[in-house]
Amino acid sequence: MTFFIMEASSMSLYVNNQKLTQFVQKIFSSFGVTREDAVICADNLVLADLRGIPSHGVARLRRYVDGMSNGTILPHSKPIIVREAPSTATVDGQAGLGQIVGHFSTQLAIEKARKTGVGIVAVRNSNHYGIAGYYTQMMLDAGLLGISMTNTAPLVVPTFGRKMIIGTNPISMTAPTRRNKPFFLDMATSVIPRGKLEVYDRMGKDMPEGWAVDSKGQTATDATEVLRNMVARLGGGILPLGGEGELYGGYKGYGIALLVDILCGVLSGGAYADLVDIKGPGGAGQPALVAHFFMALNIENFVEMEIFMEKMDDLIDRLKESAKAEGQNRIYIHGEKEYELYEQHRQTGVPLEENVHETLKAIAGERGVVFDL
Amino acid sequence: MTFFIMEASSMSLYVNNQKLTQFVQKIFSSFGVTREDAVICADNLVLADLRGIPSHGVARLRRYVDGMSNGTILPHSKPIIVREAPSTATVDGQAGLGQIVGHFSTQLAIEKARKTGVGIVAVRNSNHYGIAGYYTQMMLDAGLLGISMTNTAPLVVPTFGRKMIIGTNPISMTAPTRRNKPFFLDMATSVIPRGKLEVYDRMGKDMPEGWAVDSKGQTATDATEVLRNMVARLGGGILPLGGEGELYGGYKGYGIALLVDILCGVLSGGAYADLVDIKGPGGAGQPALVAHFFMALNIENFVEMEIFMEKMDDLIDRLKESAKAEGQNRIYIHGEKEYELYEQHRQTGVPLEENVHETLKAIAGERGVVFDL
Repeated sequence: MTFFIMEASSMSLYVNNQKLTQFVQKIFSSFGVTREDAVICADNLVLADLRGIPSHGVARLRRYVDGMSNGTILPHSKPIIVREAPSTATVDGQAGLGQIVGHFSTQLAIEKARKTGVGIVAVRNSNHYGIAGYYTQMMLDAGLLGISMTNTAPLVVPTFGRKMIIGTNPISMTAPTRRNKPFFLDMATSVIPRGKLEVYDRMGKDMPEGWAVDSKGQTATDATEVLRNMVARLGGGILPLGGEGELYGGYKGYGIALLVDILCGVLSGGAYADLVDIKGPGGAGQPALVAHFFMALNIENFVEMEIFMEKMDDLIDRLKESAKAEGQNRIYIHGEKEYELYEQHRQTGVPLEENVHETLKAIAGERGVVFDL
Repeated sequence: MTFFIMEASSMSLYVNNQKLTQFVQKIFSSFGVTREDAVICADNLVLADLRGIPSHGVARLRRYVDGMSNGTILPHSKPIIVREAPSTATVDGQAGLGQIVGHFSTQLAIEKARKTGVGIVAVRNSNHYGIAGYYTQMMLDAGLLGISMTNTAPLVVPTFGRKMIIGTNPISMTAPTRRNKPFFLDMATSVIPRGKLEVYDRMGKDMPEGWAVDSKGQTATDATEVLRNMVARLGGGILPLGGEGELYGGYKGYGIALLVDILCGVLSGGAYADLVDIKGPGGAGQPALVAHFFMALNIENFVEMEIFMEKMDDLIDRLKESAKAEGQNRIYIHGEKEYELYEQHRQTGVPLEENVHETLKAIAGERGVVFDL
């Protein structure tokens, strides 16, 4: 998600990001996750909150805790390389924490890119890896052009369908600049994230047509009913980017989602489509089989870094300085809003909704960790 | 463009594809293009017509003829490799025919993928290269997973803007299968192609809201006015996939278009955004500076080919066999419609609209080529 940022309501508490990171780290450590790995997991979640993407922040801690408790996520597992060449690799995540698998695979892609100009790593048998942008940030920090993709639980219906077969399959890409903030794309390939349905469900307000379909595959405006059908898998779900049918190019969003799934799930020899992240009987013991794809490019292999950054800055300037639509006063570049929120939240603390705060407190109690937030 | 296929009207003539290819080849040869290169250019255009994408077929021959006549396209130019490593290269197209530059660069990516598992080639200073799918078809024929992208003349306004800064920047990806037709994505990243505006202009009918904006950057339904403003560059243009503003994720389509432009225009050290394919004073002598990106992956570097194809077939089956929306009886995979039209047009001949036939006749006269279609 890029421009659509769900800022916290006025009911939020603001928590210092370092304190929050330390708390989350202790929760992971309570499962016997190594210190190094717990730091990665905590950084990953808190970075999402700092950037204003709370749907992928500490609000998801419950999900990881449950996964480690019920055996879906194996907290001591280490990813292994199953196939390798100088520029490519396939990694088996061994059902470990998605963040650890993602961090390992991104490091591998970075090393390969530094040696050969390009590093491509396809990953199978992993878990939910948080924001796709955590890994492209690593590649950006390494001075590389970075791409990160993952498949997800099936929440999206294909064009002309009414069953959720494909994931929200996000894509992130980063590219360095000199003067401007780096280009930082991090977006789901569905028209909306699941969180949007939940917002409309809570508000009890009609959704715009073109976001989701009902159990018959027709455009739906009742978020509560759509969510109920999605949970029970009775049909209906979120539409791909471009919406329903062909009129606004919904088949293109569907196509981009398949591109992601093929590079992640199929190329890694892993799971794809509605084989990903399905709850087993009672929700227990079923491996999530999430698959990822990472690509790092060493820019100097293609063009001088100075020229690349100069052109990036010029591209950004051309967009930002171009004429605005009537009623608008700013054209955004991808990542810009998140950079601003990041700076803001480092000052104010990370906003946590009341119910998230309560959940963290409950988790602390369960795991015997002091709750000091 | 994938599902939206503009089939020819009943006014069309049907022309044998081999005969058409030979004619187009002779036109290119009349500019001194080598026989081998003329075959590539003719194949590229006729393949688009065979697949039911006439907007990129022989209807564009006038554009290439004009380009070679006015010096925008240098028909004797040969692309050169300006930077190279075992898995990567940057190519300068030397203002040659986009098809020749694209063919050369794709061959290079294929050779690199065969040797190292991956071949990535960024290309600058080229011209319009026809359908992106021509190059992914080459990679598919070589048994590889293929990706092809290009930037284009600026026709698309960024989210909240009213000036055309970015291209329709298409993406194509192919992946092999055993039982089913291969996955064959070939789509512009804009909500519609320019050709759609022209269809509504000719019909004199209102367009749906969310396709294009007027000179003030507001949603427009008058295709004739939008086209007039676009030609005069008075403001307005086509919207990115996801439409106007943020409600339907227009910033995502805008982001994917930038991803394409960065991999093509910036990474190659070439032109991007509104620096691409701009008419010079009088339309003459201005290099188009189109940039491309090609990536070929050797599947066996990641997973056994047999497993890959089995999973591709299963992915396709899961989609095609899943429940249809009410009123629909078929779920399509990308490329399926085009494969069916291809088979059909090989039997019936390629449909040519009356005015396209007239244009080809006029070109034949100008170039001293016998017109036998």
